[in-house]
Amino acid sequence: MALVAAAQHRLTPAATDAAIAALKQLLGERLSTAQPVRDQHGRDESWALPSPPDAVVFPDSTEEVAEIVKICAAHGLPVIPYGAGTSLEGHVTALQGGVTIDLMQMNQILKVNAEDLDVVVQPGVRRKQLNEYLRDTGLFFPIDPGADASLGGMVSTRASGTNAVRYGTMRENVLALTVVMADGRIIRTSKRAKKSAAGYDLTRLFIGSEGTLGIITEITLKLYGIPEAMAAATCSFDTLEGAVNTVIQTIQAGIPVARIELLDDVQADAINKYSKLDLPVQNMLMLEFHGTEAGVAEQAEMVQALASDHGGQNFQWATKAEDRARMWEARHAAAYACKALRKGCEIMATDVCVPISRLADCIIETKDDVVKTGLVAPLVGHVGDGNFHLSVVIDRNNPKEVETVEAFSERLVHRALRMDGTCTGEHGIGSGKMKYLTAEHGEAVSVMRAIKKALDPDNLMNPGKIFSL
Amino acid sequence: MALVAAAQHRLTPAATDAAIAALKQLLGERLSTAQPVRDQHGRDESWALPSPPDAVVFPDSTEEVAEIVKICAAHGLPVIPYGAGTSLEGHVTALQGGVTIDLMQMNQILKVNAEDLDVVVQPGVRRKQLNEYLRDTGLFFPIDPGADASLGGMVSTRASGTNAVRYGTMRENVLALTVVMADGRIIRTSKRAKKSAAGYDLTRLFIGSEGTLGIITEITLKLYGIPEAMAAATCSFDTLEGAVNTVIQTIQAGIPVARIELLDDVQADAINKYSKLDLPVQNMLMLEFHGTEAGVAEQAEMVQALASDHGGQNFQWATKAEDRARMWEARHAAAYACKALRKGCEIMATDVCVPISRLADCIIETKDDVVKTGLVAPLVGHVGDGNFHLSVVIDRNNPKEVETVEAFSERLVHRALRMDGTCTGEHGIGSGKMKYLTAEHGEAVSVMRAIKKALDPDNLMNPGKIFSL
Repeated sequence: MALVAAAQHRLTPAATDAAIAALKQLLGERLSTAQPVRDQHGRDESWALPSPPDAVVFPDSTEEVAEIVKICAAHGLPVIPYGAGTSLEGHVTALQGGVTIDLMQMNQILKVNAEDLDVVVQPGVRRKQLNEYLRDTGLFFPIDPGADASLGGMVSTRASGTNAVRYGTMRENVLALTVVMADGRIIRTSKRAKKSAAGYDLTRLFIGSEGTLGIITEITLKLYGIPEAMAAATCSFDTLEGAVNTVIQTIQAGIPVARIELLDDVQADAINKYSKLDLPVQNMLMLEFHGTEAGVAEQAEMVQALASDHGGQNFQWATKAEDRARMWEARHAAAYACKALRKGCEIMATDVCVPISRLADCIIETKDDVVKTGLVAPLVGHVGDGNFHLSVVIDRNNPKEVETVEAFSERLVHRALRMDGTCTGEHGIGSGKMKYLTAEHGEAVSVMRAIKKALDPDNLMNPGKIFSL
Repeated sequence: MALVAAAQHRLTPAATDAAIAALKQLLGERLSTAQPVRDQHGRDESWALPSPPDAVVFPDSTEEVAEIVKICAAHGLPVIPYGAGTSLEGHVTALQGGVTIDLMQMNQILKVNAEDLDVVVQPGVRRKQLNEYLRDTGLFFPIDPGADASLGGMVSTRASGTNAVRYGTMRENVLALTVVMADGRIIRTSKRAKKSAAGYDLTRLFIGSEGTLGIITEITLKLYGIPEAMAAATCSFDTLEGAVNTVIQTIQAGIPVARIELLDDVQADAINKYSKLDLPVQNMLMLEFHGTEAGVAEQAEMVQALASDHGGQNFQWATKAEDRARMWEARHAAAYACKALRKGCEIMATDVCVPISRLADCIIETKDDVVKTGLVAPLVGHVGDGNFHLSVVIDRNNPKEVETVEAFSERLVHRALRMDGTCTGEHGIGSGKMKYLTAEHGEAVSVMRAIKKALDPDNLMNPGKIFSL
């Protein structure tokens, strides 16, 4: 059953054709209207229904993106930026038709400033590509959302992931951006100094703006020295409370863990089946420590002591790079492992984040809800930040099941908001969570809308995402 | 000679009186038009000429601030927020007349969420007051700009200071804000979760907006556990290069120093005279290390080895709290020590920040310029971030000297910009650095202006700061 979202085209077919013809003149073969190309660009990895654009363009420079945006602005045609397509809330669907700008040909690493611990990249560089490139410099870029996302996409969604607990999110790790505005102006948001008090923080405004304010065409990222020592560990718990309370105390004690991930028993079982591992089918923490040899040992001992106090068992170590890699591969395969649980089913990924003092409450209430509702929904979490996901396995062809899952998801969001949390810790709003934005931000949404209208008065930049206008 | 800035009043005296009468009805004795009160609120600690407001009001709640702003909006009267008055670029002068909102009666610490490592405060709380209040909780708020500033002011100017190298600036340490917008709407920018991908980052937009977009009336700040161990050290160098290169290598090695401050020989001499110390009259680094006992020792050994490689001498320790306190008091008194160098003179504080790879170049070129120009200008710097200040001692009554200093300051800014740095690392733009904003940000300033116009269409919020409209 090939479902698509009902697009509400802004232009008539003739007006769209005229705009595309103008773009074709600029781009030649780097514009495609082939159905498979459009289909591929009309969806991400989310639960959102696909909605293909009218055309896809493949620019190779900031200036070319500016020309494209100017042509689209002149014709009133919407513009949607596209990276690796790994977003999770329907960020890239062409809900009002328009042109998708595929930025993956802009995949150059422009300059490593090793002394300054920063790097300038184009938006189509993927995070694994960047770290492979950096390996010989002794530096790395830590942010790791799991998927091998493009860095432009990671900026746009304010991505984070497993080691944000130590290194922060994209919010903390971008120094400067080059952005093409809705009218084709090119701006640079900041110089390369590590801090500045000069004017409004446009860098942070564009981070997480999901392509609704401009197209990001160049990114200056912070880098870090590869730690002298790294060690990973797993630890199992009979109860979820034990695992979560270990996390809470680790954070409160200020132990600078690099990663502290929770997997529940359902998830551990799914990973065993998918990744052919033999994890204990229990609630589990996966940890990583970065530092000097002595520092890593000290951190690990402190966490192990806290875990023991809360019923932690089977503290197992992985110090070899290959063992660590296998463990984190298994963690990153969690979503695919969930999908494999029921043939022909899809995953609806949830993503709330609460103050850590409420994390145990939020997880336990949610697990009760899963059991009562009868869902298959493994839980994983970047719990050091209070952020967790359920991968709800769902048969989209069963309307009753869809209804049940959507009601569950809504209860989860309101539970998190009630606990002073957010409806999305890291996936973003896209089209999937628009309905929760006002519940979370209230009157502040009117300020967001005013900014959107000021910077994109014709609502051409990724329209229908974050909020409707 | 009592210089004041020539205010360009927006309203006629009669219209101003009508607005003030309406405010008086709301506030009674918490509104003052007494000349000394107006004078006191018409200046900060900067070089900018004072410009008193027409009245000063002292609200005690967010709702009252909203009422004040609504009355001012209805009358077209400008509104200037005021905290401790320690800003350094003329942020609080009433250049177009209007009402100053003194927020120092809103000085309550509303809620410590110790488990979540955060605290909710009113904007008039000062940083020392907060840390005294927190002492028994084992937590602290690290950001330390030197002056005992109000937290509202620190948010508004994106302040940082000595230990930003470890803990970040205000940009990284605010979780959420309550803001009164130009039309009196009250918004809250974020929930209390540690991270979120839900909509535009309004928190960061208001941080550093210097009162030009709204009045901050409540702040949720991140807190940190007081480290198990702290140690401070000083080290002297014959050459500036030796000191600066020690800093650069410390940062590049990823050693998590909590503070790493540079003072040149001129500054060391000034501090000796003012604070009655016997620091060696040489270029000096002042360092602080935070961590476990073992971690602090490890960090300190690594830095000491780097310093020795660059000619560092007299590595001296201060592990007792009182010795550390005395050392940092002396550092914080640096500006006053400079002022004491020449009777009847004032200080013009500069504040550039460059990528750390350019720090030695920038400092050395600047010191050459000081010598050539014949200025008395001690240098201090938060050099771990690439940020440094010169306190230029200046006789305002000597027009030739003023001209010389202003030309020097302009050369310094352009030198920093040429090195991909910023015209202000932490003091802000205020009125003092408006002329450099476009040199630094180019076309991006038009985006800042568009946001300002969207959120404050009548330009009533601290007009004449950051940019003219």
